[in-house]
Amino acid sequence: MATRASTATAQQQQVDIEETISRLESKKGVECVTVLTKDGRVIRTTATAEQSEVHGKLLSRLARDAAEIVEELEPQDELSFLRIRTKRHEIMVALDHSYLLVVVQSPQKE
Amino acid sequence: MATRASTATAQQQQVDIEETISRLESKKGVECVTVLTKDGRVIRTTATAEQSEVHGKLLSRLARDAAEIVEELEPQDELSFLRIRTKRHEIMVALDHSYLLVVVQSPQKE
Repeated sequence: MATRASTATAQQQQVDIEETISRLESKKGVECVTVLTKDGRVIRTTATAEQSEVHGKLLSRLARDAAEIVEELEPQDELSFLRIRTKRHEIMVALDHSYLLVVVQSPQKE
Repeated sequence: MATRASTATAQQQQVDIEETISRLESKKGVECVTVLTKDGRVIRTTATAEQSEVHGKLLSRLARDAAEIVEELEPQDELSFLRIRTKRHEIMVALDHSYLLVVVQSPQKE
């Protein structure tokens, strides 16, 4: 029973992830959505394999740097969200204890 | 005349900085406002000397890391704004070619 219950939970999580990705991807200007492990391994992406690998490597590194700095600033505090605005894009990184959700938006795009 | 004009410009810039800091500082939840050079030297702050020095050191480092990563992602792109949401604070870092403007907000604070 426990196995069946945990399979159902895993399936529900998968459905939730897919729903979240579809919802985010349908928003105006969203270029791609990627779910990563904290060490940068791509779990699910709407980007190309190459692009998501670069995002995975670089953005998980930035999230690690930011998390370290937040802890240095105040040891009881914890990073939860990072928003990187550049001249061409807006990159949002949401963190939970094991995953990163990365959304890349292009504000100029219709 | 050129010297007088540039002195007037510098004075106007100083007034602009002070006005911006006052405006930001008066907003609900704003804990401190700091203007830094890109290498982390504090130009003007409403925080304590100790706090602004730590912010200067760590946040200029994070801005440098983020700027490098943005350039690695796309060489023609450039970092302009960084928003760091933690469990206790929201830290906003606006960048221009030589300075950083750091605003620390505490969302729970009245």
